[in-house]
Amino acid sequence: MAKERILIVGGVAAGPKVAARTRRLMPNAEITVVDKGRYISYAGCGMPFYVDDQVGHFQELFSTGYGLPRDAEYFRSERGINFLTRTEALAIDRVRKQVRVRDLETGREGTLPYDRLVLATGADPVLPRLEGIDLAGVFKFRDPGDAQAVKKYLEQRNVQEAVVVGAGFIGIELAGALANLKLLTTVIEFQERILPQMLDADMARLLEERLAAAHGIEFRTGERVTRLEGDAQGRVCRVHTDRGVYDAELVIVAVGVRPNVNLAREAGLVIGRTGAIAIDEHCRTSDPDIYACGDCVEITHRLTGEKIYAPFASAANRQGRVVADNLAGRPSVYRGVLGTAVLQAGSFNAGRTGLTEEQAVKLGYEVVTGLAPQRDRTHYHPGSGMLILKVIADRVSGRLLGVQGIGPGEVVKRIDVAASVLHFGGTVSDLIELDLGYAPPFNTPVDPLQHAANALVNKLDGIVETISADELKAKLDTDEAFVLLDVRLEKEARHRKIDDPRRVLVTLSELRRRLAELPRDKEIIIICDIGVRSYEAYRLLRGAGFTRVKSVEGGMRAWPFGPASMF
Amino acid sequence: MAKERILIVGGVAAGPKVAARTRRLMPNAEITVVDKGRYISYAGCGMPFYVDDQVGHFQELFSTGYGLPRDAEYFRSERGINFLTRTEALAIDRVRKQVRVRDLETGREGTLPYDRLVLATGADPVLPRLEGIDLAGVFKFRDPGDAQAVKKYLEQRNVQEAVVVGAGFIGIELAGALANLKLLTTVIEFQERILPQMLDADMARLLEERLAAAHGIEFRTGERVTRLEGDAQGRVCRVHTDRGVYDAELVIVAVGVRPNVNLAREAGLVIGRTGAIAIDEHCRTSDPDIYACGDCVEITHRLTGEKIYAPFASAANRQGRVVADNLAGRPSVYRGVLGTAVLQAGSFNAGRTGLTEEQAVKLGYEVVTGLAPQRDRTHYHPGSGMLILKVIADRVSGRLLGVQGIGPGEVVKRIDVAASVLHFGGTVSDLIELDLGYAPPFNTPVDPLQHAANALVNKLDGIVETISADELKAKLDTDEAFVLLDVRLEKEARHRKIDDPRRVLVTLSELRRRLAELPRDKEIIIICDIGVRSYEAYRLLRGAGFTRVKSVEGGMRAWPFGPASMF
Repeated sequence: MAKERILIVGGVAAGPKVAARTRRLMPNAEITVVDKGRYISYAGCGMPFYVDDQVGHFQELFSTGYGLPRDAEYFRSERGINFLTRTEALAIDRVRKQVRVRDLETGREGTLPYDRLVLATGADPVLPRLEGIDLAGVFKFRDPGDAQAVKKYLEQRNVQEAVVVGAGFIGIELAGALANLKLLTTVIEFQERILPQMLDADMARLLEERLAAAHGIEFRTGERVTRLEGDAQGRVCRVHTDRGVYDAELVIVAVGVRPNVNLAREAGLVIGRTGAIAIDEHCRTSDPDIYACGDCVEITHRLTGEKIYAPFASAANRQGRVVADNLAGRPSVYRGVLGTAVLQAGSFNAGRTGLTEEQAVKLGYEVVTGLAPQRDRTHYHPGSGMLILKVIADRVSGRLLGVQGIGPGEVVKRIDVAASVLHFGGTVSDLIELDLGYAPPFNTPVDPLQHAANALVNKLDGIVETISADELKAKLDTDEAFVLLDVRLEKEARHRKIDDPRRVLVTLSELRRRLAELPRDKEIIIICDIGVRSYEAYRLLRGAGFTRVKSVEGGMRAWPFGPASMF
Repeated sequence: MAKERILIVGGVAAGPKVAARTRRLMPNAEITVVDKGRYISYAGCGMPFYVDDQVGHFQELFSTGYGLPRDAEYFRSERGINFLTRTEALAIDRVRKQVRVRDLETGREGTLPYDRLVLATGADPVLPRLEGIDLAGVFKFRDPGDAQAVKKYLEQRNVQEAVVVGAGFIGIELAGALANLKLLTTVIEFQERILPQMLDADMARLLEERLAAAHGIEFRTGERVTRLEGDAQGRVCRVHTDRGVYDAELVIVAVGVRPNVNLAREAGLVIGRTGAIAIDEHCRTSDPDIYACGDCVEITHRLTGEKIYAPFASAANRQGRVVADNLAGRPSVYRGVLGTAVLQAGSFNAGRTGLTEEQAVKLGYEVVTGLAPQRDRTHYHPGSGMLILKVIADRVSGRLLGVQGIGPGEVVKRIDVAASVLHFGGTVSDLIELDLGYAPPFNTPVDPLQHAANALVNKLDGIVETISADELKAKLDTDEAFVLLDVRLEKEARHRKIDDPRRVLVTLSELRRRLAELPRDKEIIIICDIGVRSYEAYRLLRGAGFTRVKSVEGGMRAWPFGPASMF
């Protein structure tokens, strides 16, 4: 019997994964990978950290853990995989089962036959048609060539001010990197907030405020770039928007990516509604001999059942494993994602899993949330960092729907735990019952995630009635008569407070004996640092017969309306 | 109606938790806590980190996050809780519903009535009857007074050598703290390995080897302390065991704790087989008006259904919440633990959740394991650290049974995720399918936990046959003819290798064209750094018709038999 020929188009993440596992499972197959680029099997997600020198050497983005470059020679000798770089796949002939390719160095064309074909064609950055987009100093940020070009430009030019167009995942990571390099960095986002795909408005605004305060990043949301202006040398010098003009010697455009589906579409494969290649749970396209995986496919959101486009490296890897299994006759399945996404920008971490509150409301859930700032480990332990978690659940069933987290503290552990609960369709009670590991270097006896879940349950059970920062802000902007009861210590209030004549400071420890000073005919809104003492005070006041009482959820730590926080 | 009287005995962890939440839920109750100690509501788990100055001030172990001391006055003014320190509960009169107490300052006795009583009497350290146990310089390590005494002794005496008796949880944390202080530290453990309650022998030995290599801690396992010797001034100077004598100017005895159940036992409450107070799922004792929680109770291991004694702060906190709920007429339940435990010692983290392999085998499971060293985040990212994970599952059902982890890297996140899967009775496939967050600062595209689970599944599916370090060691100790095929780079092998004439170095990249050099009549055992290249080579050899091939699980990183590792 002739050797089976497996042809893989795309050599960045999913493609090499398929190739490597297929090689292990099918020792006699002939495995060929073609990629039009010069760089293969690279760590695309590491590139923002190369820009700000956290990753020291360009080569590290292509190296194995033991120091070998992951180039074509590595794949040939270590993996027995035939890797053709700078080779573009032009068309699939599904009848003859062959792919026409062009060697981009020589221009020569030829065909590669296949028994089974895998499309891992990835995604390309969306580049808006903007005047000035071709100026020197304007970059996209998708492949290692881009990262290297940005870095070289920074080294060669005296860049003081930078603009990042787009406040999505990559845009925010890049803004963090540029701010780490001490550039005056402005992020311009067309939507009304940063990370619109990832965070609810309240969490996005808190992160925005923190990034601005800690790193000096300027955010311009709800603003559209209209053109890029160049200087006499053809270098970008200014960014014009519908609302202003910003000096910038460096502009990075990161407004999203779009799946590369031309090859698939022209071969008549089914493209999904998201615009990405449609696959079944075995990662098979509409042609049974053609699989697809990675950033070119659409996947199932396991909580909604809907197809979404979510180009993440972790999903690409799992799909690659599933493709290889199926190629080798092991019918494993890929069930989709829960919408988990995490990032680091400057000194802040952010993450989300499951649905946002907005998504959940749109889907018809009766939503209840809990928002809680907390230290990620015991406050007395060195290196402890604050984080704010938001837990989202269905009021009717108690089912957990999603969790978001931001802060300098260990956010991602909590996101991963929440993703695990979501995987099983668990409830908020499940979350609270988890037997998580506790020791002072790692967390608090009640883990911050469980603390946030407790906060949610207390609301659900009617033990506390809360008011959000947004709602309080709206009230403060009116003439309404109410008492804003600040129960923190005087030194805390001196440091940062809401400046309003309705604010009264009575520390929690004094509150019991000063109850008579509080009016019984006005609403009393209690605020503290993180929402714990205000909850305590709420219960105290309710117990003492006060009826119109609310606790500000998350306290001053969740207050994004200035003065700047001390996060 | 008279105010309900809630009396709580014990003011360290569970007691104050009950008091605080009960206060919130029952604003009119009269809540009293009695504790015989001077220090209340303290962070006992933080004490090892106070010894090595990671926690800067003694007061921090008793402070709120906003800086107030958590003393009786704090509980009175902020919480409305009556807190009696230095007050010993002597006896419970269940008929009259009152507790006889003694003021330890004045010696005066009295009675405190209750409507409902909560026992949170905690645990005391086991102190073996040893000659010399009362010498100066010999300490137990249970309450802040102990921590302060150790610290003072270290400041006042010129301590060079220390002995920790007991290699359990506290003993290992303390050894790390003393080693951080540059003391020559010896740990003497009567059982055959360190952390016998927490880790399997293979993982314990790896951690032991790492702690010894990195911190110079000397471990003497399988050795029994026979007496402590003092100098002319009555200060400890030597520790005698059944196998040796060790100089030591400081000895800390940490051989475990024992629940304080005298009060309960003398009142006729049911004591469980573990020796701790028996409670139902509402944390109620055999007397419906008496609850118990914290280190004095036994709890259910949710995987075995058995009652165990597992005195952990996180469990105490959750029980405290459940007790308060039930006191307030909210019938919440406490379902028990999954055996999760984590610790930090020196620069190493360690953790376990679920069953160990040994426990699982004893329970009759047909066990399959996967052991995998891996970096906790992308290898090119600054601060990435190695960890070794061991995943334990039931071969028949695929059900996850437990996970252990050790290393300088982020172990605890993986333990928490595994604990979440165990909570739902999930399988190894569930573990692999989890949609965990990926970004280079946090993990690898395939999370180390999922990588370890994949390693297990590959064994289960017969894709690879492995040999453990133990088994290889046994083979090396015989005259058996086999080839130990080292497929690492030469520079890696120069750094650390198994010295044996049967070892042959053929790097993975050369292996394909040098297959002819390998004998077909001998067993070939392949080793690399972490077990990934040896797996690749295994598949290569099997594909090339070699039949007697094995891959060393975990490679050199999981090899504890010297020369010292480079972890």
